[in-house]
Amino acid sequence: MNNAAAFIKITYSEMEAEFFRILCNNGFDNIKAKTCAEVFAQNSIDGVYSHGVNRFAKFIEYAKDNYVRPNAEPVRVSGFSGIEQWNGNLGPGMLNALYATGRAVELANKNGIGCVALANTNHWMRGGLYGWKAARAGCVFIGWSNTIANMPAWNATDNRLGNNPLVIAIPHGEEAIVLDMAMSQYSFGAIEMASLKNEDLAVAGGYDTDGNITTDPHTIMDSKKALPMGYWKGAGLSLLLDMLAAILSAGNAVKDITKQEAEYGLSQVFIAISVQALSNYTSIEATLNNIIEDYHQSVAATPGKKIIYPGERVMMTRKQNLEHGIPVAETVWQKIKSL
Amino acid sequence: MNNAAAFIKITYSEMEAEFFRILCNNGFDNIKAKTCAEVFAQNSIDGVYSHGVNRFAKFIEYAKDNYVRPNAEPVRVSGFSGIEQWNGNLGPGMLNALYATGRAVELANKNGIGCVALANTNHWMRGGLYGWKAARAGCVFIGWSNTIANMPAWNATDNRLGNNPLVIAIPHGEEAIVLDMAMSQYSFGAIEMASLKNEDLAVAGGYDTDGNITTDPHTIMDSKKALPMGYWKGAGLSLLLDMLAAILSAGNAVKDITKQEAEYGLSQVFIAISVQALSNYTSIEATLNNIIEDYHQSVAATPGKKIIYPGERVMMTRKQNLEHGIPVAETVWQKIKSL
Repeated sequence: MNNAAAFIKITYSEMEAEFFRILCNNGFDNIKAKTCAEVFAQNSIDGVYSHGVNRFAKFIEYAKDNYVRPNAEPVRVSGFSGIEQWNGNLGPGMLNALYATGRAVELANKNGIGCVALANTNHWMRGGLYGWKAARAGCVFIGWSNTIANMPAWNATDNRLGNNPLVIAIPHGEEAIVLDMAMSQYSFGAIEMASLKNEDLAVAGGYDTDGNITTDPHTIMDSKKALPMGYWKGAGLSLLLDMLAAILSAGNAVKDITKQEAEYGLSQVFIAISVQALSNYTSIEATLNNIIEDYHQSVAATPGKKIIYPGERVMMTRKQNLEHGIPVAETVWQKIKSL
Repeated sequence: MNNAAAFIKITYSEMEAEFFRILCNNGFDNIKAKTCAEVFAQNSIDGVYSHGVNRFAKFIEYAKDNYVRPNAEPVRVSGFSGIEQWNGNLGPGMLNALYATGRAVELANKNGIGCVALANTNHWMRGGLYGWKAARAGCVFIGWSNTIANMPAWNATDNRLGNNPLVIAIPHGEEAIVLDMAMSQYSFGAIEMASLKNEDLAVAGGYDTDGNITTDPHTIMDSKKALPMGYWKGAGLSLLLDMLAAILSAGNAVKDITKQEAEYGLSQVFIAISVQALSNYTSIEATLNNIIEDYHQSVAATPGKKIIYPGERVMMTRKQNLEHGIPVAETVWQKIKSL
């Protein structure tokens, strides 16, 4: 476990084709297999390996175990003008979330602001994807998911909180500014990646099995206890995001999900705001450029190091991975090939 | 500076009467003086001294300097169904924010979800107040404000980010669950209070004048550089909250506010969701109690210590301060009496 894993490079097209083959063999119809394969390959090309290639085998396992129902589709439960509640029917989390994002954008185009709350869905993998989608459709996006309990409350020692990822996205030219962050200081994907690479975390990221705060990813993988970002702050935000997801969607809360034998039946919220509804929409791009320009003028603590905004690294990683291939731990790719 | 300050106790009614007297003497009409005095006294009784009694003298200074226009009122600039843009006309931040909250609730009652974006306003003091107001009116609330730059970006050394407070509130019986948090690990109010009490912060809260991360509130007061909560996470969230506040309201961004000679002309966002618009609204209380019950069963790291949710301490503090009076540093109260 303490030896750094060997990495190989896989092209986007090879990865997507491999995912597509496996999905088709596991009960996904062609269209759904195609979209799911694209999502996992895109998340990987964008550098979010933890919710791309490194997660794919587990996703297939969930489909085999019937936690993820390959061809289930979301159904509208209720609606009142700008807000709607949908039931995800345990369909693939990415497909449900893509659908809910599109529907929130439609509601925003009609009402200025729209909200879709989705119950009974599955892990959306990389939340940023839905931010990018809404932003490219001309909407600001605020969305989040709950999860299984994987962090203690502040001053507590047992996991009662999810690391409930929060996504905020803003249209920016042809692209977007996208914040995609779990309520833990590190996502478990990032902790797993550090563990695979055998590198300590830069700051404290969780608890060891004795309840001490630590930077060692191996002991955090053992305890399965992440540290909330900002201590009590991330813990508080996590709790309220869970409450909101559960009441807005009429779905499961973290505690309900945690009682199950696996992480399924999640609750999610998708809020979209149409920038065209704003009086100043023609000058929004100038405002954003103005803010970014100032931000980029920050004095770096390490001279020469670029200060980047959320989503900026994604575009750099995407370019690099398209050119050189997607880095994958050899063991991870071997497992996928064997599926 | 390094001697702990002496504290006295002031009753709610004495405090409110004193504030009212001073506000009337500084150009506020009776109704506005009454509401502003109530807000400062209520924030103090609820334990948010930094945006109550400890802030009052500065608020009066701002009114004297005409940054805060005592009797200015907000005006609607544009609207599209569930979203509206308002101009705060540099009126008192609390009055503008109370108004915007009420208007967001009206929009939510009509559209399920409503958003008011407010430009050209002033410091709202304690953001939680607007969460409590919306929640008591039967709405979920998500709101935030930008501020003057007071935190460096992550890996940077100069202040380019505001600590932009974020508020999320959920109706809960006759009361509310209210998260009110700045994007810094500690609000400057909390750092100032620690400095007044001459106590170190429990975790790192800012930078000293040499750029080192520190728990010493005095050196953070000197450098005026707060640490983002969760390092890069709070920094990223701060940046996006500022971008959203500026584009949604067509108002100033942090960089614009920071260029001025003082912190005025802020941008704020008020989102309300009507829980009555939800199919499950009759069972929301049961869902929340279910989550809170589980949360309260957390195993405390310090045996016997109660694990509390956001807003829970406020109710305890309120009870205590109503019984025993509001603790105020003697120097702070002397200054107020002299106004």
